[in-house]
Amino acid sequence: MRFTLTKEFMELVRQKIVEQDSLWVKENVLELHYADIAEILDALSNEEAKYIYFLVDENTQADILMELDEDVRDRFLASLTTKEIADQLENLDSDDAADILGELSDEQIHEVISQMEDDEAAEDIVDLLNYDENTAGGLMQKEFIQANMNWAVDRAIVELRRQAEDVEKVYNIYVVDDLNKLAGILSLKRLLFASPKTIISEIFQSKNIISVKTSDSDEEVAKIMEKYDLVAIPVVDFQNKLVGRITLDDVVNIIKEGADKDFQLASGISERIESNSSIWRISRARLPWLLIGMVGGIFSAQVISQFKTGISLVPSLAFFIPLITATAGNVGVQSSAIVVQSLAKGNDQFDSIIPKLLKEGLVGLLNGAFLSLLIYGIAFVFSSTTLGFVVSISLLVVVFFSAIIGTLIPLLLHKKNIDPALATGPFITTLNDVLGLFIYFTVGMLLYNL
Amino acid sequence: MRFTLTKEFMELVRQKIVEQDSLWVKENVLELHYADIAEILDALSNEEAKYIYFLVDENTQADILMELDEDVRDRFLASLTTKEIADQLENLDSDDAADILGELSDEQIHEVISQMEDDEAAEDIVDLLNYDENTAGGLMQKEFIQANMNWAVDRAIVELRRQAEDVEKVYNIYVVDDLNKLAGILSLKRLLFASPKTIISEIFQSKNIISVKTSDSDEEVAKIMEKYDLVAIPVVDFQNKLVGRITLDDVVNIIKEGADKDFQLASGISERIESNSSIWRISRARLPWLLIGMVGGIFSAQVISQFKTGISLVPSLAFFIPLITATAGNVGVQSSAIVVQSLAKGNDQFDSIIPKLLKEGLVGLLNGAFLSLLIYGIAFVFSSTTLGFVVSISLLVVVFFSAIIGTLIPLLLHKKNIDPALATGPFITTLNDVLGLFIYFTVGMLLYNL
Repeated sequence: MRFTLTKEFMELVRQKIVEQDSLWVKENVLELHYADIAEILDALSNEEAKYIYFLVDENTQADILMELDEDVRDRFLASLTTKEIADQLENLDSDDAADILGELSDEQIHEVISQMEDDEAAEDIVDLLNYDENTAGGLMQKEFIQANMNWAVDRAIVELRRQAEDVEKVYNIYVVDDLNKLAGILSLKRLLFASPKTIISEIFQSKNIISVKTSDSDEEVAKIMEKYDLVAIPVVDFQNKLVGRITLDDVVNIIKEGADKDFQLASGISERIESNSSIWRISRARLPWLLIGMVGGIFSAQVISQFKTGISLVPSLAFFIPLITATAGNVGVQSSAIVVQSLAKGNDQFDSIIPKLLKEGLVGLLNGAFLSLLIYGIAFVFSSTTLGFVVSISLLVVVFFSAIIGTLIPLLLHKKNIDPALATGPFITTLNDVLGLFIYFTVGMLLYNL
Repeated sequence: MRFTLTKEFMELVRQKIVEQDSLWVKENVLELHYADIAEILDALSNEEAKYIYFLVDENTQADILMELDEDVRDRFLASLTTKEIADQLENLDSDDAADILGELSDEQIHEVISQMEDDEAAEDIVDLLNYDENTAGGLMQKEFIQANMNWAVDRAIVELRRQAEDVEKVYNIYVVDDLNKLAGILSLKRLLFASPKTIISEIFQSKNIISVKTSDSDEEVAKIMEKYDLVAIPVVDFQNKLVGRITLDDVVNIIKEGADKDFQLASGISERIESNSSIWRISRARLPWLLIGMVGGIFSAQVISQFKTGISLVPSLAFFIPLITATAGNVGVQSSAIVVQSLAKGNDQFDSIIPKLLKEGLVGLLNGAFLSLLIYGIAFVFSSTTLGFVVSISLLVVVFFSAIIGTLIPLLLHKKNIDPALATGPFITTLNDVLGLFIYFTVGMLLYNL
């Protein structure tokens, strides 16, 4: 039932392209779902992909184009003339067309727009280009179905049939008043089962209509659609006039990107990159955090050098430096990850900081006590009791403070409206390293009476 | 337009509950969207929440129940009698009802089911309980709309009106043949605009219908719905008979949980926990990784102890232990995060391991060279050139190997069908610590001629 791409099939496709066997391609590739065709094109070279793409009918071309990997699509579009790009845009949804145009230079945009034949579509796209791409306005599409609340059902169906040609997926009809202000929503289900002469205002839903403003951020839109379980949301301007709609598939990407971004930030990667980004870009995205780590390492060296005489007298103290720093780092990352995730979900807005710190402190004491006892047990067996005591006591203290810092810093950043995901990963690890070493050597000096 | 929960409003709600002011609650709370009411109940005590909940009409109760925080819902249901639970279940979608029942003991399930009045609904729920909760069968609901391909449009509309009462969100009508096998899909839009005597088989879409089997995993379902841009997907059994549907809102959670799970695993948290889980559970979830880190720390201590004489002679070598381990860890986590994310997206199935390793190796050399030069520069200014040279050379080597290991391990785990997210975080950090220290001290011994 479902298509699975195999190496063998790809080799066959390549061979048939070389042979220019359009009949085979039509029968074996073009019959597939557009998402599968896009997957095939992703794996082909630009020239090979073009051969298949231009065998496809216009509407499916648009669907395929939007399913391609971003890099593949950029490469593909770069190889087209402005006239060819204009032709492609006419078949796209306005939001997708605007996204593609947004990647071009002002000059190219001008050329492409002037070569579009459908003036209305061109106008819609130009209008969408005005919105910041990270707002509801930048996400919305101009394709939606609307009905006036004073229409009768039979008139509405005639009007809707006309509008519906442009709109691929219809979930709801947006009901407006005479001033084009959003008044409510009518489900297709209700319309289907209503008698022809009923007035829409009698059957539409006007209570608790959720909409977003063009200026709302994309993350806000994603949160709202998730919270209210919506597959599509109407977008209004500042006068509450209906100007567009956003569908869930566009928002799923934002939800995923948000989670990916947090993960990357926590892993010390400061720009959005993918595994196929260029080596320079990957390197650049990673350097800031590595530098922070290095600065932390230099601070740690400073801390340790303060205990130089101690180390000369008891060199085995140095053996457990990595154990202390690793544990401090791990505990910090664990604590902060939970805080970052719960902040990202928008939980806990009413809770103050103190109870969270107490809880993390308790978890820290519990885990610290367990690790402490374990390491003391191990040390006892190998009969190096003083050193074992030093490591054991300092572990308990280090785990406790690391948990507190791992919790406190993201919460404080959040209060200051800084993305708390910044705090996880290298930053907290580094801070905990320095603090952990200080605790460890202080305990060491005290217990060894140095 | 949209409701925002404030501290002041919550205080007012609590006060009105104490005063048993049901009129105020009806006017100010019950008029809100069910998702907002759920948000209010989340912030109340169980007794307070119950007061409001039982003022709500039955259908909205079901919606609210499914929007509550999982912990709040569990606590709430635990305080109800089996009869009360049975009443709630009758208004829920079958998938939600089965999820809730699945949390109860076998005895309780039996009691609740026997107290349900709607036998058909009870049967649907019992049927759903048979499926593993992580499969399409466990995700699907029994509420969907189906039409026989041989029906005329007018007959279909009559039948659908009857079915549609149970189905809240209708996106598509599933078309079946006489054996109840899935034959295709009919959009409501097409049905709305078709003439009454048209036979459905003439207007429905039968090409490239995407469905899932009851046994497909939930992650597979999420991937397919994402790939094919679906808001709902039909579920079939092994004979291709239509048995249910899955809607995107249920799958969005899986997509998000997948990303959250990767993030938590990478942060060294081995069970799914939230910030409001109990202290014991949080501690337990974190211990495994802390133990791995500790074992790594003990290995590191072993490595360092091999170079004990060297440290006695040049104690300042110990100062840069944290710098080496922190950098090795950071580089490893960065490399593995990118690999884990691209594997989670299902990219790169055709690429072999070698080109990835080469790329990561290059990134490693580039960043390593930069950090090396920088630390050598700093050391040069402070005129401790031999030590600077040791740190600088070993950093270059350590960054290179850490990048290779950070890339290789998740890829190898993926080849062995083990979740590669396990490799990120503490595991790779620990491995890189040990390797990094070995490289550092070996370089140190060589350059100091010890």
